[in-house]
Amino acid sequence: MSASSTAAPLPPVSYGPVALVGAGPGDPELLTVKASRRLEAADVVLHDKLVSEEILGLVPPKAKLINVGKRCGDPKDRGLQQDEIHELMLSHSRQGQRVVRLKCGDPFIFGRGAEELEFLARHGVVAEVVPGITSALGASSSCQIPLTHRDYGVTQVRFVVGQSKKYDLPDLNWDELARDATSETVVMYMALKKLDRICARLIEHGTPADTPMALVESATNSDERMLVGTVGTLPRLATSNGAGEIGPVIFFLGPTAAFPANLETLAGAGKCTDKEPLLEGERAWKRPRTVAMVAPSDC
Amino acid sequence: MSASSTAAPLPPVSYGPVALVGAGPGDPELLTVKASRRLEAADVVLHDKLVSEEILGLVPPKAKLINVGKRCGDPKDRGLQQDEIHELMLSHSRQGQRVVRLKCGDPFIFGRGAEELEFLARHGVVAEVVPGITSALGASSSCQIPLTHRDYGVTQVRFVVGQSKKYDLPDLNWDELARDATSETVVMYMALKKLDRICARLIEHGTPADTPMALVESATNSDERMLVGTVGTLPRLATSNGAGEIGPVIFFLGPTAAFPANLETLAGAGKCTDKEPLLEGERAWKRPRTVAMVAPSDC
Repeated sequence: MSASSTAAPLPPVSYGPVALVGAGPGDPELLTVKASRRLEAADVVLHDKLVSEEILGLVPPKAKLINVGKRCGDPKDRGLQQDEIHELMLSHSRQGQRVVRLKCGDPFIFGRGAEELEFLARHGVVAEVVPGITSALGASSSCQIPLTHRDYGVTQVRFVVGQSKKYDLPDLNWDELARDATSETVVMYMALKKLDRICARLIEHGTPADTPMALVESATNSDERMLVGTVGTLPRLATSNGAGEIGPVIFFLGPTAAFPANLETLAGAGKCTDKEPLLEGERAWKRPRTVAMVAPSDC
Repeated sequence: MSASSTAAPLPPVSYGPVALVGAGPGDPELLTVKASRRLEAADVVLHDKLVSEEILGLVPPKAKLINVGKRCGDPKDRGLQQDEIHELMLSHSRQGQRVVRLKCGDPFIFGRGAEELEFLARHGVVAEVVPGITSALGASSSCQIPLTHRDYGVTQVRFVVGQSKKYDLPDLNWDELARDATSETVVMYMALKKLDRICARLIEHGTPADTPMALVESATNSDERMLVGTVGTLPRLATSNGAGEIGPVIFFLGPTAAFPANLETLAGAGKCTDKEPLLEGERAWKRPRTVAMVAPSDC
């Protein structure tokens, strides 16, 4: 806890309202109606780096946009420290402004939304939280990878992170993940850099190497793409196909990762399907079937 | 698999587009922009029972609304069978209509969205999936129960269901849940009827009885309310307070379930807080702090 976050006597000011708002996974149409209204009403928007220009375009021109984002892995572009973000929220609120803290995905999943609320509470500001479509849900829908499926025996969903500050590999319960890999969907955020070792560790702990696994890059954006493989093949596929070059990456582990391929088989060959091979060679990228209320006869 | 779902030769018709759309947790403002556009464009909407009138009000008057929902536990009001829902989607699509299958929450979490896609694919219809704010995310934001929090040691999220057709208790890995109860947030859907036994089983398997646990009823709706307790106290609290009488219930298990109370402590006594006791007596319901961009001085 920083010195700046200790409680201080409240000055007699009229605070502007603060909302922590989920920006969703990328596609501006996946903002909630409430989130877009908060952006339209904002005087100042403190936003993560990855929030798109299209979404920021909803903010009125007279409002102030402040990029507070960190870019992973780039030490020269560290963004603001968390304490600085806290102070910016508070100082704008103290000026009576409507403050939106716009966060990628959902504010309460792998962000630091809870810490931001704590800081504000300590300074007498009650903030609103507006949920967002987290990347797991966005990629699941756009790539048609269900998170649960009775016929696949998948009745549980787990979200984990694939990187850790303290450990060489993330501090996950590998025995559990290995045991459950065939009966749940695990969504891994921020796992690309450790993918080789994560998959090797899963196999060491007993995950069958042929357990389906999919990689989705730039989920729900116009350049979205996915790779479908297995725990045994995905690391090589990711490397040979330059995964991570265009946007953030998320992984799906478990039987449901095979759903898109199975769906194409059900639909039959030649009907609105991409004929490139799924798993072989250098051209393994799939473009998810983002059909927007379009009749199949138009495909 | 029913007889009706086997592939048949496709008649030479022009199919109307089909979209599986997540209606979110209840609050109409938590629809995504894309979901509300699909409703506005629909010719027919096949909707779950729990979707609110306000959301259905977005559908144009000339469009057809069909309630296909099942109500849990009421054998007289079973709703349509899954096969019947499939056939309705297909027959309206074959008439060239724009079909929205509107599902509570997210289409791919504990719904049967995947089965609906399979049926459509088998009949040559490529459907779109529009994600929704699943109840876990909606309740998390509105009740300010973060799903992850570094300082609480919570770096993993798990969604499970608390009922099962085959088993007396759901087929969960109790050892895992018990072991991880202090380092993850578990969200339990459809668990109210088995709450006593779920909590007893968790304690038997080693979950500390004082592990925080919260119940949220009618999440994100105007009558939303929550109970905060522990694995040891929540079953009694739920019974003595009539939980489940006004709407669907969802549970949060793990350290983050104590976050709302901790936030009130941080904010200090008397500032925008509800002075009723959290855990005692018959008046234990909390109204989540749904402050919508309102300055704290107006509380």
